[in-house]
This record gives sequence, structure tokens and C-alpha cells, in this order.
Amino acid sequence: MAREKPAVTPGSGPAAGEAGETDLISLEATAQRISEMLSAIGAIGADPAGGVSRLAYTEPERDAHRLAATWLTELGLRVREDPAGNTIADDPTGDDTTARIVLGSHLDSVPRGGNFDGVAGVVAAVEVVRGFQARGWRLSHPLRVVCLAGEEGARFGEPCIGSKAIAGLLPASALNELTDEHGVTLGQAMRNVGLDPAHLSEARWSSRDAAAFLELHVEQARILEDEGVPLGLVDAIAGSARMLLTVKGRADHSGGALMRDRGDALAAAAEIVLTVESAGRESANHGLRATVGRMAVEPNSLTTIPGLVRLAIDVRDVDTERLRAVATSLINAAGEICDRRGVVLDARVIADTSPAILPTWVRQVATDTCREMGLEYRVVTSGAGRDAQVMNHLAPAGLVLVPSRRGLSHVPDEWTSSVDIARGVSLMVEWVARLDQRMAQWEHVGG
Amino acid sequence: MAREKPAVTPGSGPAAGEAGETDLISLEATAQRISEMLSAIGAIGADPAGGVSRLAYTEPERDAHRLAATWLTELGLRVREDPAGNTIADDPTGDDTTARIVLGSHLDSVPRGGNFDGVAGVVAAVEVVRGFQARGWRLSHPLRVVCLAGEEGARFGEPCIGSKAIAGLLPASALNELTDEHGVTLGQAMRNVGLDPAHLSEARWSSRDAAAFLELHVEQARILEDEGVPLGLVDAIAGSARMLLTVKGRADHSGGALMRDRGDALAAAAEIVLTVESAGRESANHGLRATVGRMAVEPNSLTTIPGLVRLAIDVRDVDTERLRAVATSLINAAGEICDRRGVVLDARVIADTSPAILPTWVRQVATDTCREMGLEYRVVTSGAGRDAQVMNHLAPAGLVLVPSRRGLSHVPDEWTSSVDIARGVSLMVEWVARLDQRMAQWEHVGG
Repeated sequence: MAREKPAVTPGSGPAAGEAGETDLISLEATAQRISEMLSAIGAIGADPAGGVSRLAYTEPERDAHRLAATWLTELGLRVREDPAGNTIADDPTGDDTTARIVLGSHLDSVPRGGNFDGVAGVVAAVEVVRGFQARGWRLSHPLRVVCLAGEEGARFGEPCIGSKAIAGLLPASALNELTDEHGVTLGQAMRNVGLDPAHLSEARWSSRDAAAFLELHVEQARILEDEGVPLGLVDAIAGSARMLLTVKGRADHSGGALMRDRGDALAAAAEIVLTVESAGRESANHGLRATVGRMAVEPNSLTTIPGLVRLAIDVRDVDTERLRAVATSLINAAGEICDRRGVVLDARVIADTSPAILPTWVRQVATDTCREMGLEYRVVTSGAGRDAQVMNHLAPAGLVLVPSRRGLSHVPDEWTSSVDIARGVSLMVEWVARLDQRMAQWEHVGG
Repeated sequence: MAREKPAVTPGSGPAAGEAGETDLISLEATAQRISEMLSAIGAIGADPAGGVSRLAYTEPERDAHRLAATWLTELGLRVREDPAGNTIADDPTGDDTTARIVLGSHLDSVPRGGNFDGVAGVVAAVEVVRGFQARGWRLSHPLRVVCLAGEEGARFGEPCIGSKAIAGLLPASALNELTDEHGVTLGQAMRNVGLDPAHLSEARWSSRDAAAFLELHVEQARILEDEGVPLGLVDAIAGSARMLLTVKGRADHSGGALMRDRGDALAAAAEIVLTVESAGRESANHGLRATVGRMAVEPNSLTTIPGLVRLAIDVRDVDTERLRAVATSLINAAGEICDRRGVVLDARVIADTSPAILPTWVRQVATDTCREMGLEYRVVTSGAGRDAQVMNHLAPAGLVLVPSRRGLSHVPDEWTSSVDIARGVSLMVEWVARLDQRMAQWEHVGG
């Protein structure tokens, strides 16, 4: 079945611009199904305090995977779970020797996060499969949908755990070295939800497994909304450096200790927070993001000078050199602040993900398709990390973004319209078909 | 029995300087008993994370009161608990119409605090009673020991709850208005440990109940240790203003949101922390202490820009005007910081305790006694608030401090030698006897 040419080539489908009403109805029907799937997933891990909490390798994440697996099974795909907790669904009309076009994203969330980050890409992949089935199109590179586990770095500091396992970028040592805030190791967390991390290496794909990887994701910024453009085609994805800092001062009575005798860990941490923010705001660092998102104070009593503060710094940039330089300069600056104040700094890099430049030709196919379909788009850079940048190590990856309302993400208010996701699905169906054709031609020429 | 002159007047006891060996042995024996009592109390509420956690109106605090009550009962005192949870122990040789000389301090602690703050004063009071009994001395103003409840403001923001109830300075409205970090009101907390706050007003004493109040406390600063002086006689106690600030920003994705689009609540809070510290360090504010001891970040995720930060500011000063002026200027400065950053500030004053100037004549009796006994002392100001400043509203109060090792307090490492406490007891026994004599003479003249 490999190499078999599509029964109906994309070009023979209704041409862009002609379809009019038919496409609108289809868009609405797709949006309706997307909306229902989002609601069903959103009920899993709904946090009483607002938003959803489906952290990496917890039962809510696994429940979301199980639900997505039922949808994929109903579409007739062959579904399995790998040892890293990724859910993999193959079109059974393809054989196992043909590289597949892979579509996917993740189902986990940050604590009290939104229900669109990741989920939008999974439900879009489901709808792309349905689109091909409805049209009766067949592909030289059969489809695979993958629901990737543990994309959010919120629990273990390390993002994209599932896709890294697939790409062979997750060393076995990570199972013991990565821990959550309660000290649970990644390996233990996996075992707690019934996975078998001893077989982690079996999650790895060879480059012959995947011909391409495409992901739809919500933008998590507000460029598309501000410019009124429905689709963003990503040229580059920022890398991230994450550091855990511990400032050890001297806890003491807030009324007793004189100001000059203090070793106030929180005052030192406050200076570090502002230094991190300044680094992000410097004009020389335009585009870089630097954030302190997590901070804990001990003993955290109204009448005690803080003796210990832990904080986490997250730096993102599409420029590897600048990313590393800023991360290093922040650690140095924090060290100087602590030295000057007579408190002790302990700093540890917990994750360092390189930026990714996505292959131009994959994006070019998408921009050509957009123009032919009359879809407006903008080429954008993704400040947030994505599974696509990890999967790009394995196969050429493409990433399309759809607008996030007010740019909000990682919060309960995160929201993207189902129609915008459905529009992304329309693009992806054509994008997949053209990529398939293009790659088949190359393989034909090459063979 | 009232007005009965002491059977043996202080002057007829062994004169200072003569006693030599006898006093040394007595000091050691007293120190030994103090050490044992401290150990027994320290076992109550011992925190697995270090230090002791006997928060106001919790079972550990009540257990400490029950233990102290057994000691006081064994000494033959008449012990009762009032509706505010204070433990009151009267020398039964006095009648109920005679104003008493009251000795006491508190038994609660901050979270993971030390075992000397407050406890030292209670065990000292027990030893002063024992000292009078051993000497067979009787007083015109019979002794009362009071273990005051809820002195630490760490749980409810409001300090000296027990002593304020006694002095009539705790309005009934506080029972519903004061809440801990879990939203438990003071009234509910009292009921949870079996107290009856409906009868709170019955805890109030009339000025005829107390002739004087004396407290021994650990210094919680390092002036005495630095100068090698064993006793500090307090002239004034700082007041405190405590404020809860909530900074509401916009939670968002740390990789997505551009630096210029952010409403980072933690960055604003960091500026506030440094502003508070600067206010304390300004030379015009010499002696004032300003601290942010408590801060909580939401959602506190590595990859989310903080959307909400709560922090508590504690300002202490012996100068009421300056205290209020600095507290007000800090709220204003925090408002400006938040306005400039486009985030929202909510500020609430949760406690405002006036500084107290303690009566000079009470201290004068102590300094005279020290000189006669050959005890070194220094007149000091207390930066930390004390029950003595509240009790001073009811009766003339005196406060003696003993050294804290390295000045540390409100931390597990807090430590004061039992010999230093015993030396304070020696002073207090003579101080009480002389005050009693002095007041009896005045009353005689007055009558």
C-alpha cells in the first residue's frame, strides 16, 4: 500500500474559493465537533480553584489520553500507548514500513491552566483524520496521530518529556534526576500511573517512522488577535533555560533584628526578580522573555525575616547564543546581589532546550496552500516551546498557530474559538495532502 | 490580709554582694529547674521541620498552658482559665480585694519558632513565686502569675490577643474580623480549642486587680550579647503597623506574553519589598524596622507569569508619628508602583499597635536594685512588641530582657541560657519586693 498514489489528489477536490457554502457548513460542523471534544477533555482535571490541572504523569492527564484514545479508535485507527505515556494512533491502511505523516500535540496542562493549550492540537488532529476519511483521500504516507505526554515543564521543570522520549532526547538518567516539588521522581510518577519507565527506550522512533510532523497549537500571545489574522505559520520556536535558585539568609524576629544586621532572603530575591525582568526588557534582548513564575518563602511568617527563598527563572529566546548569555548573566547577577547582601545563593540549571528553526519548505507548502485557499496568515515566531521543536529532530516539522483571546494562556481564562481551530483543520488537511504529494515525488525521483 | 506588711522585708534578706556562694548555688539550682521546664514546654508543638509551632489558639498552645497550670497548682496557687484562654494563678494568701503584682508572659510561638520567646517569662514567673515561698516573704500586693494567650501576631495578624482582652483593648468585633490564612476567624479558633468567646468581656480586669505588671523576656536582638551585659531594662516598646497587600496582575504564559504586554504581579511585589526595606534603612528612620515576612505567589508555576501576589508588611517603631507616617508612605509607594505597572493593589491595615513608654519609676526601682545587687544592666528599647505594653494600659509595667544568642529569634536556633534567665529571676524577686514596699508606702501615705 506504500507508495500508492492518492485516489483523489488534493487538486481534484473542490478548489479554494469555489466551495463557498459547502466549506462554510463543513467549517461549522467541524467547529461543533471540536467544541464538544474540548468540553469533554475540559471536564477532566477541572480544578475547583478554576481552570484545569492535568499535570504531567498524573491520573487526569492519563484520563485525557484514554478519552482521546476512544475517539481515535472510533475513527478506525490502531491505538497503543508507549512506555513514555504517549498515545499513538495509526491509520491501518498504511503498513509499518512506510514513514508516516504525524499529527499531534499534548493533553497535559499547567496547574490551573487552560483547556486549549495542547488540547486544540489533539482535537485538530482527530478532525484532520476525519477530513481525509470523509473525502476518501488516501496518502502515500499514511497518517499517525500522537497525543504526547508531559509537554508542560510545570511539574518536573523539563518540558516535552513524551516527545523527547520519541526523539531519543530523554536520557534514562532523567527518570531519577527530574523531581517535582514534592520530591517525586519522573520515574516514580510514571510508575504511579501504571507506565513502565524501564522500557522507556522502546518509546524511541527511528527516522523511518515519521516523514513529517505537523502540529496545530493556540498562539499563547496576541499578535494574531491584534492583527486580525486567523493563522500563524511558525518559522522558529524559542528555546528555554530554566534555573532553580535558593537564597539562604538568616530568619530572625522582624521587630528585634536591626535593619543593618539582617540577612533577608526575600529582599535579595526581590532584587533578583527585578534583575530578571530588566534583562527581558533590555532593548538589546528584544523578543527574549525572562520570568520568575515560582517563588516560595520560608518560614513565611508575618513577624519573621525570611530565612530562605526558592525561586525559578524561565528564559526563552529563539537565539541560542543570546539565550545562554542572558541565563549566565542572570546567575552571575544573582550571585553578586547575594554576595553584597551577605546571603548565600545556590543556583541549578534544571532545563536547557535549544531553539528550533523549522524547515522552510514545510512552511512554504503551508503558505502556498493558504494563498490558494484564500486564508490569511502571518509568519510568526513562537515564544513558547512546543513538541514540534522536539519532533523536528526526528522529521521535518511544521507548526500552525490559531489566535488566543487576549493572548492569555496558562490561565483559566485561556480561550480560542472552535471556528478558528476548524479553520486550522481546513488548512492542515490540504497541507498534509500537498506535503504527501511533494514527498512522494521526491521519493520517486530519489528511487 | 491586705495591707499586711511583709513578714520579712527585702532589706532584711541577705544584702547584695554578701551572699556570694549561697546565691551562686541558688542561681544554679534555679537555672536547672528553668532548663527542665523549658524542655518540657519545648516538647509541646515541636515541629518536624525544626523549632516549635504553638500558634495562638491551637491545641499545642493550650497544652502548654495546661502544663504551666500544673506547675502553678503544685506551688499552691489558685489557677483558672479565662474566656480569652489566659491562665491566671493567684497566691491564695492574698484576698480578692487587693491589687496584685502580676508576673507573666506568653506560651504561644510563631510557626517553626523558638522555645524561649515568651516561655522564658512564664518559667521566670514560676521561679519568682518559688523564690518568695522559699524565703517566706509576704507581700502587701500578693502575687499573680498570668500565662497570656495568643501573643504572637503570626496567626491572626493581631498580636497580644490575651493581654488585650485583659486590658479591655480587644473589641468583640475582632472575634469575627480577625482571620488566619485559612479563613478561620479568631472566634471560631477559640471555640475549636474549647474556649467560650461569648464571654470574652469577662476576661477584662479592672485597674484594681493589678498594682503592677512585670515581664521577663528574651531580647530578640543582640545588643546585650554584643555588649556582654546580662540584663536589659526597657524604657520603651516599639509599636507596630501591619498591612496585608494583594497585587493583582495578569497570569499568562511565560514564553508567549511579550515583556511589554505583561502585568507581572511578582515583579510589582518585588519592587514593594525593596521599597519596604529602603524605608527601614533610611537614616531618618534609624531604629525603625520594616519587613516583608510573608509572601505567596499564584499560580506559582514555573511557566506562568504570576497573576496574584499576597504580601504582609510589618513596620515597628517606638515613635508613633513616624510609625504611622512610614506605614502610610509605604502604602502610597506600593500604590504608585502598581499604577505604573498597570496592576491593581489592594491594601488593608490588619493591626496597629501604639508604642509604649514604660513608667520610669518602675524601671528606676529595677536599676537601683541592680546596682545594689552588683548586677550589670543596660537601659534598652524593645523593637519587638510585648504583652507588657498592653498590660501597661491597666497597671504600671516593667520589662526586663535577657540575652538571646546571636540575637536570633522566631527561629529554631533561638536560644537563651537558663543561667541568664535565673539571673533575671534574682532581679525580679528583689524588684517585686521593693515595688511592693514602695507602693505600700504610697498607699499608706495616700490612705
